[in-house]
Amino acid sequence: MNVYFERLTQAIQTNRSHLCVGLDLEPEKMPEGVWRDTDGFVHFGRSVVEATADLVCAYKPNLAFYEAMGGASFHTLRKILEAIPETIPVIADGKRSDIGNTSRAYARALFDRLGFDAVTLSPYLGHDALEPFFEYANAGCYVLCLTSNPGAADFQIPNSLYLEVARRACEWNRNGNIGLVVGATQPERIAEVRRVAPDLPFLIPGVGAQGGELEASVRAAANAGPDGGFIISASRSILYASSGDDYAAAARREAETLRGAIEEALTSVGPKSPD
Amino acid sequence: MNVYFERLTQAIQTNRSHLCVGLDLEPEKMPEGVWRDTDGFVHFGRSVVEATADLVCAYKPNLAFYEAMGGASFHTLRKILEAIPETIPVIADGKRSDIGNTSRAYARALFDRLGFDAVTLSPYLGHDALEPFFEYANAGCYVLCLTSNPGAADFQIPNSLYLEVARRACEWNRNGNIGLVVGATQPERIAEVRRVAPDLPFLIPGVGAQGGELEASVRAAANAGPDGGFIISASRSILYASSGDDYAAAARREAETLRGAIEEALTSVGPKSPD
Repeated sequence: MNVYFERLTQAIQTNRSHLCVGLDLEPEKMPEGVWRDTDGFVHFGRSVVEATADLVCAYKPNLAFYEAMGGASFHTLRKILEAIPETIPVIADGKRSDIGNTSRAYARALFDRLGFDAVTLSPYLGHDALEPFFEYANAGCYVLCLTSNPGAADFQIPNSLYLEVARRACEWNRNGNIGLVVGATQPERIAEVRRVAPDLPFLIPGVGAQGGELEASVRAAANAGPDGGFIISASRSILYASSGDDYAAAARREAETLRGAIEEALTSVGPKSPD
Repeated sequence: MNVYFERLTQAIQTNRSHLCVGLDLEPEKMPEGVWRDTDGFVHFGRSVVEATADLVCAYKPNLAFYEAMGGASFHTLRKILEAIPETIPVIADGKRSDIGNTSRAYARALFDRLGFDAVTLSPYLGHDALEPFFEYANAGCYVLCLTSNPGAADFQIPNSLYLEVARRACEWNRNGNIGLVVGATQPERIAEVRRVAPDLPFLIPGVGAQGGELEASVRAAANAGPDGGFIISASRSILYASSGDDYAAAARREAETLRGAIEEALTSVGPKSPD
């Protein structure tokens, strides 16, 4: 197993958690009392990390929210990443990809410069656009398959493109470092993806603020792998659980509740035997 | 017409040029004598801009190369953008998109923070992921349709997904600010896209280093719009035309040659009448 998935599995087991917390810092959602500047955002991000680090298996900052900070972006992200314990891997949610030459620069930015352990990638440009990421054999590469938003119906679902993406991802997985992003809003389709890609780890967003179905998603995604086959990511529902001073404690409570619900759903599915 | 396409058309007419220069700064390709640090990259970028500004209709920095610079990214980009005359619009090549909430943050980063005039977008997540960009009625939004890399054959060409993207882009274009990215490597497919989307402006990469066919692409893309229906982007062949001290003069020469070849191809197509 590669280093990222090994560390992820370790964190899942140690913290008994399949919960990945999205560190999506939105200035307009910040609790009262948090300064609307770099120091404030760093403090907020670090506080949420400190309050939840024993309850999660991964963190996932979405790069868009940092880029929206302008010049402070890189510094803010770095300061927050520093607060994450070595034992918890971090996924750069950027949905990147470009022609080979350019993807190589993105991979360098995310893995070498910022030290991320894993990334999310968009498949539209095809294999050679993703390969520069796949070449980082010890990183995790989650390819968008079926997203949790309404627009999934525009191109992903017609002609079952999302299943074709899943099929190709299996073929490309010679380094064992590819996973798939499948949204929690359509559990019956998650089950189809699982049939096509029995071994690929899933990253499942869309639970919480986006209204995805937790138990059905877990049932559809779980496999017999040591990581259980999936992680579930939530962001807003945890980060902004309270709009007051107690936001860190509230984030902890929410994370604890969601972790519990996920593990309960997984128990109700029962042990999967490797097929 | 929206502000971006108006300025683009003005620049096309003033400079008699459909050439967009990609400002893709790659440290390992830098000419000798250019310092491999922020100051060096800024100097290089500004020199190329100063040497070519009267020969182009737009500039297009690909964000990947700036992100790969780490903490210096934002500053470097800003300093180079400052050197571009007001009359030449600038396209952020980032191939972004995410669920609505997050796309809004990307749009803010690119249009509000960095002051770009246009962007490139990836369509995989569908309409609601692109809409936050389309809402900037005076910006330009180029949606990836058919890319110039081999991976276009993976998902874009099967089931003619690229034509479906073109069709939907036409439907979404209520602000008149949508264009399409179509690579120069497959001119016969550019012609198909043109039939599906007669009025959308095309951004055509893939000429030069990627070996696309210039004349056939121009023939397939040209329409009767005041902008001629397309711009052609080239990067490496111009930026790194010389590996010596004379890189700015060499970039100017290359840009002049390519501009001439494009305008000649356009003349050979003859005037298109509006249909």
